[in-house]
Amino acid sequence: MNQRLYRCLREAILDGSIAADTRLPASRDLAAELGIARNTVVHVYAQLQAEGYTRSRQGSGTYVADTLPDDYLASGRRKRQASTKPARSSLSERGVRIVEGASASPFQWGAFMPGVPDVTEFPHRKFSRIVSSLWRKPAPELLTYAHGGGLPALREALAQHLALTRSIDCDPEQILLTEGVHQGIDLVARILCEAGDQAWIENPGYWGARSVLQANGIRTVPRAVDEEGMHLPAEPLDAPPRLIFVTPSHQYPLGAVMSLARRRRLLALARQWGSWIIEDDYDSEFRFTGRPIPCLQGLEPDAPVIYLGTFSKTLYPGLRLAYLVLPKSLVGAFQAAHGELYREGHLMTHAAVAIFIAEGHYAAHVRRMRMLYGRRRAMLVNLIERRLGPGWLHRDSSDAGLHLVLDLPADLSDEAVVHAAHARGVLTRPLSRYYDAAPDGGEPPRQGLLLGYACVPEADIARKFEALLESLSEVARRRGKP
Amino acid sequence: MNQRLYRCLREAILDGSIAADTRLPASRDLAAELGIARNTVVHVYAQLQAEGYTRSRQGSGTYVADTLPDDYLASGRRKRQASTKPARSSLSERGVRIVEGASASPFQWGAFMPGVPDVTEFPHRKFSRIVSSLWRKPAPELLTYAHGGGLPALREALAQHLALTRSIDCDPEQILLTEGVHQGIDLVARILCEAGDQAWIENPGYWGARSVLQANGIRTVPRAVDEEGMHLPAEPLDAPPRLIFVTPSHQYPLGAVMSLARRRRLLALARQWGSWIIEDDYDSEFRFTGRPIPCLQGLEPDAPVIYLGTFSKTLYPGLRLAYLVLPKSLVGAFQAAHGELYREGHLMTHAAVAIFIAEGHYAAHVRRMRMLYGRRRAMLVNLIERRLGPGWLHRDSSDAGLHLVLDLPADLSDEAVVHAAHARGVLTRPLSRYYDAAPDGGEPPRQGLLLGYACVPEADIARKFEALLESLSEVARRRGKP
Repeated sequence: MNQRLYRCLREAILDGSIAADTRLPASRDLAAELGIARNTVVHVYAQLQAEGYTRSRQGSGTYVADTLPDDYLASGRRKRQASTKPARSSLSERGVRIVEGASASPFQWGAFMPGVPDVTEFPHRKFSRIVSSLWRKPAPELLTYAHGGGLPALREALAQHLALTRSIDCDPEQILLTEGVHQGIDLVARILCEAGDQAWIENPGYWGARSVLQANGIRTVPRAVDEEGMHLPAEPLDAPPRLIFVTPSHQYPLGAVMSLARRRRLLALARQWGSWIIEDDYDSEFRFTGRPIPCLQGLEPDAPVIYLGTFSKTLYPGLRLAYLVLPKSLVGAFQAAHGELYREGHLMTHAAVAIFIAEGHYAAHVRRMRMLYGRRRAMLVNLIERRLGPGWLHRDSSDAGLHLVLDLPADLSDEAVVHAAHARGVLTRPLSRYYDAAPDGGEPPRQGLLLGYACVPEADIARKFEALLESLSEVARRRGKP
Repeated sequence: MNQRLYRCLREAILDGSIAADTRLPASRDLAAELGIARNTVVHVYAQLQAEGYTRSRQGSGTYVADTLPDDYLASGRRKRQASTKPARSSLSERGVRIVEGASASPFQWGAFMPGVPDVTEFPHRKFSRIVSSLWRKPAPELLTYAHGGGLPALREALAQHLALTRSIDCDPEQILLTEGVHQGIDLVARILCEAGDQAWIENPGYWGARSVLQANGIRTVPRAVDEEGMHLPAEPLDAPPRLIFVTPSHQYPLGAVMSLARRRRLLALARQWGSWIIEDDYDSEFRFTGRPIPCLQGLEPDAPVIYLGTFSKTLYPGLRLAYLVLPKSLVGAFQAAHGELYREGHLMTHAAVAIFIAEGHYAAHVRRMRMLYGRRRAMLVNLIERRLGPGWLHRDSSDAGLHLVLDLPADLSDEAVVHAAHARGVLTRPLSRYYDAAPDGGEPPRQGLLLGYACVPEADIARKFEALLESLSEVARRRGKP
């Protein structure tokens, strides 16, 4: 049945009997209608999505893709084998929710993929030399399991660096190295929250935080953002949130910087309510004009803040190295739980990064990338203003980070533009997908595009932007617009 | 208050007013008695444990350590800063449970640490050469985020290797590379189980599986093991379990091999109940006599088995590379959820390991280590029989793996021996700590020692074993025995 349903839907999409951009019925409804297990439908939807026939939008269902996956296959990507066997046992409700809400993209390299640094500029010879020197006579302690939050040498180098560049107030012991920021959010959710607790998240916001929190049974409450950051009410609507997840230095994805007044107010409310703030400082190293924005963590002594930082944007994402800066009172419990739940290791990598920082390569690389990304951003902004005119660059897109946001007219589907652009070899992400289903302010999701400029060589920016313009025109034409 | 309670308990332990091996009151009771938050007590207990003043035993509370932590400190380990600030907000119930039940050891290298391979024998020059060659001109796709379960080349190499050596029946697509086996167990728990579902685990068994399952709200039900593996009833006592976690090739930690009859029965029950079996094949590459034991996964077509394998024992633990072999029906959902919850990367590492396998180094290294560990095991078994006599080597300790189990008389505390041995520079793990609080068969936890021989050079085995014997005598004397 699974295979029959899969084939039937796939053929209907391929021969056009289900048109592009059609919303497929909810898995629950289709299952009820066909008298089959809901899980069977979920599997078929997951498979179709993995193969590029459909796209899901958080909270609003599964849509037929505008561009058929043959475009992807033609680009040399291996076709995934269809899961043709029926599931012998169903996914859990939480499993269904994770799979249906999944937003991570399988494409992570090329113009204009947001959130991706230019890994070809990574000083790989310097790094490789350090790695080789460590392998010459590796200490056994660096190769076996680890415990206690990561290599002390890296935590010391990092504490110094963060004090200088991010106004972080911490001892090295307060730093806990993690496998990416997702592991850090996972740990916070488990150690500080019960299932059923509330976490406020930004809307639009980072899909990964939402997914990890929800996987831990936490009820995420989307809060609108404005040009000063997350909206803060005088009183919580029901119970105070246990966690408040924010990106104060550079709101993700819209780009606002949280104002000082809003920061003070957020800290005061968190103290009053007994809430913890998670400060995700994901790309704060890249601010092209003005002074760096100091972080929330160091703004007041004993701030109720857990700080998240990452090397994904400054070194390379595949390194999978991030860190928490914890309040002292939580260090013991977090260390014990981290070793227990994830087991630790990667000390060779920690040692290499520690040497890379200590020898000054890290600061130099970040400086060089800041100038490079600043130039690329300026080129793209210039093209947008010259070729599209004013009003397209999102007003809060501050002069920082690895991407900017292009506003689209409300009647132009950003998902449609993304698919059309994909067919022309241009990667972008639709802004509407960063919105949660139930925005608190009533404002509908904006249509827009996240354009990453950091990973695009200057020589390609204009050409790729023209391809994007063609995609915009094509979708506008299809919608009956000039 | 936190600090006062910490100091007060620490001094009482140091000056002997609370004697070694005394059970501290449950955090809930002490908090009620002192009229303070339970969380305050949990923090103090976590801190004392992190510093080595106490030891927790799963399900049976916190005990004063026999050996004071100054012994550890003298060995050059950095003293952790005490968490002297009061917690401004409490840990969650699940956080308390994780911290209080934590069983991972901070010591992971030296005689006779179980579960640790000899990382000094890792062919690091060969591996480093491969890593350097990849860094010479790294493909950007290998440095950025990944998606879909890991580098296809490694999954292909692994599928071939597993078919040959472990009788695994799979396509490369069914392999999903994970950050250690803990991440694999975490993913299974989230995608296939609801909070409140039941998982059967072996008793004694692997503490890590228990912790990860419990962190996901799963009710673990300990099942006794005998010389054929996990006891299987005719009918489940209440509801059938959703998961059954077993180590059929080499029961962890006692060493039994699951009989063919028991395997068939386990598969039949899982099919009948709609349960999933997790087969943890953690050190099956190291079997010193007889033929390798084929895995459960390949025993029957479409077996309801999710197979867990790891490179931690065959390459080195700090690599943090493991894998799931999934039934085809689950591949799509697991790939989507894995990318979403953990983000993927480490493709450079995947590429290096793929080349290492393809060039034949992996099979050669495993063969060489099998002979080396076999010799070391034989030396240790010989010493046990010669110096202690018959009846000490646990009857199920099969001729395989990285450790063996020494049975202790029931009135000799294995925790006490472990602490006494630690003071003499010998690491072991107490068997009693691998038991769950509520064994189903009524049998009390056995006292015993897990002795890892894999990471001990032959030249050290006899000397370290003598130090262990002295510790045994010392604890026996202290208990008033000859």
